[in-house]
Amino acid sequence: MELLYVLLVLLVITRVFGEAAERIRQPALAGEIIAGVMLGIVVARFSGAFPILAGLPDDEVFLAITDLAIFFLMLFAGIELRPRQLAESSGGALLVAIGGFCLPLASGFALAWFLLPDSDLKLVQSLFVGTALAITAVPVAVKILMDLGRLNSKPGQMIVSAAIFDDVLSLVLLTALLAVIRTGELPGTFEVIGLAGNIALFFAITIGIGLFVIPKIGHLLGAAKVAEFELSALLVGALGYAILAELLGLHFILGAFMAGLFFTRTTTEKRVYEDVKTKISGITSGFLAPVFFASIGLHLEPRAIVEIPVFLALLIAVAFAGKLIGAGAVAYSLGMGKREAAAVGMGMSGRGAVELIIADIALRGGVFLAPDPPPPIIANLFSAIVIMAVVTTLATPIALRRLLGKA
Amino acid sequence: MELLYVLLVLLVITRVFGEAAERIRQPALAGEIIAGVMLGIVVARFSGAFPILAGLPDDEVFLAITDLAIFFLMLFAGIELRPRQLAESSGGALLVAIGGFCLPLASGFALAWFLLPDSDLKLVQSLFVGTALAITAVPVAVKILMDLGRLNSKPGQMIVSAAIFDDVLSLVLLTALLAVIRTGELPGTFEVIGLAGNIALFFAITIGIGLFVIPKIGHLLGAAKVAEFELSALLVGALGYAILAELLGLHFILGAFMAGLFFTRTTTEKRVYEDVKTKISGITSGFLAPVFFASIGLHLEPRAIVEIPVFLALLIAVAFAGKLIGAGAVAYSLGMGKREAAAVGMGMSGRGAVELIIADIALRGGVFLAPDPPPPIIANLFSAIVIMAVVTTLATPIALRRLLGKA
Repeated sequence: MELLYVLLVLLVITRVFGEAAERIRQPALAGEIIAGVMLGIVVARFSGAFPILAGLPDDEVFLAITDLAIFFLMLFAGIELRPRQLAESSGGALLVAIGGFCLPLASGFALAWFLLPDSDLKLVQSLFVGTALAITAVPVAVKILMDLGRLNSKPGQMIVSAAIFDDVLSLVLLTALLAVIRTGELPGTFEVIGLAGNIALFFAITIGIGLFVIPKIGHLLGAAKVAEFELSALLVGALGYAILAELLGLHFILGAFMAGLFFTRTTTEKRVYEDVKTKISGITSGFLAPVFFASIGLHLEPRAIVEIPVFLALLIAVAFAGKLIGAGAVAYSLGMGKREAAAVGMGMSGRGAVELIIADIALRGGVFLAPDPPPPIIANLFSAIVIMAVVTTLATPIALRRLLGKA
Repeated sequence: MELLYVLLVLLVITRVFGEAAERIRQPALAGEIIAGVMLGIVVARFSGAFPILAGLPDDEVFLAITDLAIFFLMLFAGIELRPRQLAESSGGALLVAIGGFCLPLASGFALAWFLLPDSDLKLVQSLFVGTALAITAVPVAVKILMDLGRLNSKPGQMIVSAAIFDDVLSLVLLTALLAVIRTGELPGTFEVIGLAGNIALFFAITIGIGLFVIPKIGHLLGAAKVAEFELSALLVGALGYAILAELLGLHFILGAFMAGLFFTRTTTEKRVYEDVKTKISGITSGFLAPVFFASIGLHLEPRAIVEIPVFLALLIAVAFAGKLIGAGAVAYSLGMGKREAAAVGMGMSGRGAVELIIADIALRGGVFLAPDPPPPIIANLFSAIVIMAVVTTLATPIALRRLLGKA
């Protein structure tokens, strides 16, 4: 019942703000995030009047629903993408990903190292800021590309491939960060090799099944007698892939995405493919995705704007510059036009989803506890990172719509 | 992540058992419930090996997902039903509902009053057994009727109308039961009148909006610019109705059902209607409903079979007889054929969903604590009620398929 109330509130405000955004020629996605920010501000001011909404960011059920939303978003993105073209653009995308990952990481680390006060935790705090700037929000990038009808355009494919690579890279970095939080030291070679092995194993298994098993069973689905069997079969495959990813220490979004990628017109009957795709689209865009995007905005806590405005401005500037130069310049050097290269840089700028999880891990891990008592820059570091994540995530759809236009 | 694992396990086993059931000409729904029972037995025996699955019946996230499943089931049932015919059959259905409610209530109460040991809690225990026999699982009845393609047949309409009336009646009874659990006494006249007023208000508001507001805004939905707006609009309406029901002290399933009832071909563009209906069908039958039906079976705890076999057998016999005679005989006396009247009795026999919630409330309310130490019949009463609920719920689809056939 509480869940139904939360879903009602979030669906109403996201659809109203999304529709309003479209009417002033802005992407609906931006409207949905702003709806979440607005709700967060109202609820924070009148938390007594909205006890359920006030507890939302930490609510276990709500977190499960947003996880489900991310799962469907990535599955839908995989279905919409053409795997062959994606593979063809993956060489260049790897370079773009490395550039768009290493530059923000290095500059974020440097920024923190110069500005944060000395303490036992300075190394981990700087590493945290670097990580926060390096990652990319895959679900945000793919949703806006889908909304614009640009998912299978050249910059679209480049953004998605590079964002996926970024996601894998950030897993390695996250492992390092967690090791530092836990033990105070960087992880050993053994641990890093183990993770690399798991990543290779994951792609070997999912691509192997996708190429050799799925085409053989895809055509059999129509023979089932129970209703909606095809949709269930796709979900079972995607859930299986997602759990495989988690078991191997990766993020479940990789599994959902890979499963969608192998659900294509060639492996399934045309009628089944269209039917299932329509339904996944409905669940995603009409129900779960708006709730998820509002949840990003909902996390915003504006304290850092007042307390450490200069640091916050620097952080946001470095965040944009790191991706625009790191990813955009590499894309430009690979022969892309200026406009498209800028779109690649901006497309990788959004940090919404995973960021908030990492910031939360850092908060729980005690990363912001030293020096004691914490000066304003440390006390507001969490708030600043979240604002940076929301601002860059909000800028992604607005910039991409301007740079790429709507198909 | 845990949720994804749970969904994977439940989707795989329900679809396999459902498909197997269809292959031996039994309803898929029966297969799904049996899948849950089987899983429950395996997990209970090897609970160390499946810690997540073992904790499932009490897991907050899982309960929220099953609530969501019930919400979609009732919404879908409302969409599928033709409201005009439903209204026409409602006069007879009210009589069927009263017969199918009062006879099991009285015989359940009498059975318990004669067989349970004397104690301070004997009144509330007997009332609990009566309630457990009186209620009807609306979602189970409607799903099997939909699967058989018999939702809009004469007995189908009768079953749904009567089950809905039963649901309203059981709210009144539940209020009484809760008052006895809390205070040891039956509720006052004031409380009962208040509830009756709320019920009238709920139907006045939902029918009023459905008749006068929805037809006016239904045709405007196609003008929205954001993707999947129509689906969101239906969900917003259904969530609003569901929450209205809860605010007035009723069950949210009534709201979801009423919202679906007013989403018809005449109030919406044909294209929008078909599109949204297809998507709700996908979410429901291909994703959430199997999970919910497995969860019913999952609650089964077979201890009572060994400990109090005679009482259990009597309880199940009275459960079937009460609905068959109470509801079926009334339907027969209203001019229905023998076969169809039997179908009405069996259709109202399933007690799955709400039953388990009520049994849980009774357990937490301490209904099974006296006499102290409890004799076997009291210690196993909870288990017996759950077995009765699962058995009658399992019998509903099997009997209806046999009596009505598949369209």
